[in-house]
Amino acid sequence: MIRIVIIGAGNVGQHLISAFAKSDTVEVIQVFTRNPKTVSSIDNPVKAVHSYAEIMEADLYIISVSDSAIAEVSENFLFENKLVVHTSGSAAMDDLDAKNRKGVFYPLQTFSKSKEVNFREIPMCIEAENPADYQILELVSKTISDHVFNISSEQRKALHVAAVFVNNFVNHLYQIGYVICSENNIPFEILHPLILETADKIISLSPKEAQTGPAKRNDTQTINSHLSFLSDTTRKEIYRILTKSIIDNGKKL
Amino acid sequence: MIRIVIIGAGNVGQHLISAFAKSDTVEVIQVFTRNPKTVSSIDNPVKAVHSYAEIMEADLYIISVSDSAIAEVSENFLFENKLVVHTSGSAAMDDLDAKNRKGVFYPLQTFSKSKEVNFREIPMCIEAENPADYQILELVSKTISDHVFNISSEQRKALHVAAVFVNNFVNHLYQIGYVICSENNIPFEILHPLILETADKIISLSPKEAQTGPAKRNDTQTINSHLSFLSDTTRKEIYRILTKSIIDNGKKL
Repeated sequence: MIRIVIIGAGNVGQHLISAFAKSDTVEVIQVFTRNPKTVSSIDNPVKAVHSYAEIMEADLYIISVSDSAIAEVSENFLFENKLVVHTSGSAAMDDLDAKNRKGVFYPLQTFSKSKEVNFREIPMCIEAENPADYQILELVSKTISDHVFNISSEQRKALHVAAVFVNNFVNHLYQIGYVICSENNIPFEILHPLILETADKIISLSPKEAQTGPAKRNDTQTINSHLSFLSDTTRKEIYRILTKSIIDNGKKL
Repeated sequence: MIRIVIIGAGNVGQHLISAFAKSDTVEVIQVFTRNPKTVSSIDNPVKAVHSYAEIMEADLYIISVSDSAIAEVSENFLFENKLVVHTSGSAAMDDLDAKNRKGVFYPLQTFSKSKEVNFREIPMCIEAENPADYQILELVSKTISDHVFNISSEQRKALHVAAVFVNNFVNHLYQIGYVICSENNIPFEILHPLILETADKIISLSPKEAQTGPAKRNDTQTINSHLSFLSDTTRKEIYRILTKSIIDNGKKL
């Protein structure tokens, strides 16, 4: 049995606790949170502590706190030479304090407290300072996910930027679609099938093959009519730069 | 039986032919294409003609050609006072020639020749000059779709702009994610679960509730690190304007 302590009980921490609860080879023996109130909302009750002195001996410590707190939390540990990882897409492995063996255990997914996810589908991006620790992380990852990738800190940074484009920015384009609908008394639900199909297409077609629309066709008349429809300056600017980028991208073919 | 002639055998036309083939109340009696070669690729063989003189008498004529050809095609018809509709999201109903009764029959979805879609899930946006014709369009729509909406030309224009944001532009953001992955030797498939979950979230959460990421948190350090990672000028500009828009949007809450 691999014994794990989870540090932090935010979205990622809580989803990890639920995922590990189904495992036979891994046990979450403790959760550390600075704020005692956070723990009460954890579905799978595990022993929770709030002071560094109470943290138990374990095979793996998974820090899932905000990026800016990773360094401080890892410095505060009272133990040494243990395997300590963080779950961040953007923090470097070296943000972790050097007194312990470092690694990264990054589940590449967007987590909401209110929405269950199937962890087996989530790509686990792992990295460790030495091969033995990598093997532990690989074993632990495989108990919860079917998709485990060896991703260096450099690649993880690229991946995080890519994730911002395909998740954060995509969601913001949904938001713009939502606002345009409300302003014109159209239920946003009318766009749901299009949104789902747009995402689904990418599983079988490359984004370049899947691209359609006025920018792809360089249909200046429709583009100009859309630009004059958009009164909001920022939306106009977003329309303009994305259209330009699609046109330029087509030329590179 | 409502007898339909379909004009044009592009993506939309061919998907309509397949969808109507399953209907008991609607029959596609003929397909008109200017280019005889197009028709050979139609799955459901229906009588195809290539000259306006051969077009049969029908209850409904559905023009699914490129926006710029709608006016010309509808002018070329040799009959009068028939119900003639187009399937375009962006063309006005009045692009149709006035000698026939006008309407719009717009399936709000992205169609690829190579990918089947479930037409019953596709929102049909319909519009007609008079109530009797609207009823015909409603009846025809309901034989293929469970989601029929009365959408005016004004609303349809807004909807088309919104669709450009949530489909064309979203797909282009996938493309940027794809390029960032290839440049860093990361398989794009690693982003598939995130892409699907991002779309899926929108069915149960509003885009505002679903928004996460450095821009939402106004995390200047991560934003700047991402901007310096991006070497391509256009990608940098897209990152900047979308980040600004998310931050401004948060302030409006």
